[in-house]
Amino acid sequence: MAGRKVLIIYAHQEPKSLNGSLKNVAVEELGKQGCSVTVSDLYAMQFEPRATRNDIVGCLHNSEEFNYGVEAREAYKRGDLSDDLIEEQKKVQEADLLIFQFPLYWFSMPAIMKGWMDRVLVEGFAHKFPDCYSSGLLKNKLALFSFTTGGSKEMYTKGGISGDIRYILWPMQHGIMHYCGVKVLAPHICFAPEYVSEENRKEMLLVWAQRLKTLWKEEPINCSPEWYFK
Amino acid sequence: MAGRKVLIIYAHQEPKSLNGSLKNVAVEELGKQGCSVTVSDLYAMQFEPRATRNDIVGCLHNSEEFNYGVEAREAYKRGDLSDDLIEEQKKVQEADLLIFQFPLYWFSMPAIMKGWMDRVLVEGFAHKFPDCYSSGLLKNKLALFSFTTGGSKEMYTKGGISGDIRYILWPMQHGIMHYCGVKVLAPHICFAPEYVSEENRKEMLLVWAQRLKTLWKEEPINCSPEWYFK
Repeated sequence: MAGRKVLIIYAHQEPKSLNGSLKNVAVEELGKQGCSVTVSDLYAMQFEPRATRNDIVGCLHNSEEFNYGVEAREAYKRGDLSDDLIEEQKKVQEADLLIFQFPLYWFSMPAIMKGWMDRVLVEGFAHKFPDCYSSGLLKNKLALFSFTTGGSKEMYTKGGISGDIRYILWPMQHGIMHYCGVKVLAPHICFAPEYVSEENRKEMLLVWAQRLKTLWKEEPINCSPEWYFK
Repeated sequence: MAGRKVLIIYAHQEPKSLNGSLKNVAVEELGKQGCSVTVSDLYAMQFEPRATRNDIVGCLHNSEEFNYGVEAREAYKRGDLSDDLIEEQKKVQEADLLIFQFPLYWFSMPAIMKGWMDRVLVEGFAHKFPDCYSSGLLKNKLALFSFTTGGSKEMYTKGGISGDIRYILWPMQHGIMHYCGVKVLAPHICFAPEYVSEENRKEMLLVWAQRLKTLWKEEPINCSPEWYFK
C-alpha cells in the first residue's frame, strides 16, 4: 500500500514504554510498506489540551460572551486558528489513516489526547451539522484506536467488574471518529502489559506488527450501537 | 443539610455561560442550606491537564523508565506530589459531594477536566486495587455530573443518531467515580441550551435550583451495567 499516508497520534511520556514500542513498530512496519508516516508525539510537543481563547488569533467573533465552539468555527473560516491547530489539521487532512496510540486512563484517553480531539476537530473542518456520521467531513479516512490497559481482559468483559471493553469505545470511536465521518477499524488492545512477562510484552509487539501487514485489507467495523452493546 | 461540604469542579471559559450560571446557582442554593461550598474553577486556575514528570517533586522512584501511575503512587506516599495536586486532593478529602459542571465535549468531559481526573485521583489516595468500586478509598462521598450538550434530547436516545445519553455516562460515572467508591447521584443534563430561547435557559436554572433543594434526600443510582445499557 505504498503511498498511503498515516498519522499516528501518540500519547505516552516514556519512549521506552510499551506504548512507545507499539508506536515504533507501526512507524517501521508501515514505512516498510511504502506508506508515509507522520507522528504527533503529544507529550514531546507539549501539546496544549485546554480549549481557550488563545486558540483564536486576533479579534473574537463575539467578545461579549466567549463560546469556544463558535469562536473556533469562525476562526477556522477566517484562517485564524492558532498555528499548532493549523499544523495538526494539515496532518489530518493529508492522512488516509489515523492511529491513536495511548495507555487507557480512566476508561478513556489521557487528557492530552482528549485535548487534541477537543481542539483539532473544529466545526467546518471535521464536521458541520448535519454533515456528521456517514456524511462527516473526514469521510474516506480510517481510524484505529490502539491502547494498553491497567486492568486484565477478564475485568473488561460483560460479566467483569469493569464491563465490556466495547462500552468504553463508544465515546471515542462512535462519538468522535464516526461523528466526523471517519471509518473505524477494530481496536488493538494490549491488556495489562505491566502484569505480564517481558516475553509476553515482546509477543504483543509481534502481534501488532503482524496485524499491520494486512491492515489495508481490513474492513471497518459496523460502528452502530449493536457493535458496542449487543 | 447545614455543615455538609461540597466541591464543585467547574470547567467553562466564560462566566456568563449557562454552565457559569448553573455553577452560581449551586453555590447560592447550597450556601443557603448552610453547606460549605468550594469551587475549583479549572480554566481560571489554568489547571494543568497533562500528566507529566512535573507532578512529582524531587527524585523519581524509577528514573530509567518513567511510569506515571507508579511515580504518582510513590510520590503520594512520600508526600511529594506537586502543590496543585495536594491542594485538589485536600478539597476532595473534605467534600461530602463532588459536582462536576461542564459542557459535553465529544461525548465526554473537556480535556481540562479529564486532566483533573487523571492527575488528582492518584492510586493510594482514591483507590488501591483491590480497594475499588464498593471498597474504593473515596467511599461515603457522592458525585453528580451536571452538564450541557450541543445535541438535542432526541439525538441522545436509544434510537437517536448519538445513542442513549447513558452510554456516555458509563466511563465517567462508573469508570471513574464508582471505581473510587464514590456513590453517584442521577446526572443533571441541560440539552442543547444554545438552541432554545432565553426564557427556556432561565427555566433550566430554576429546575436545577429546585432539584438542589432536595438533593440530600436523593438515593444514588444503582451504578451497574443495567442502569446504562438495559
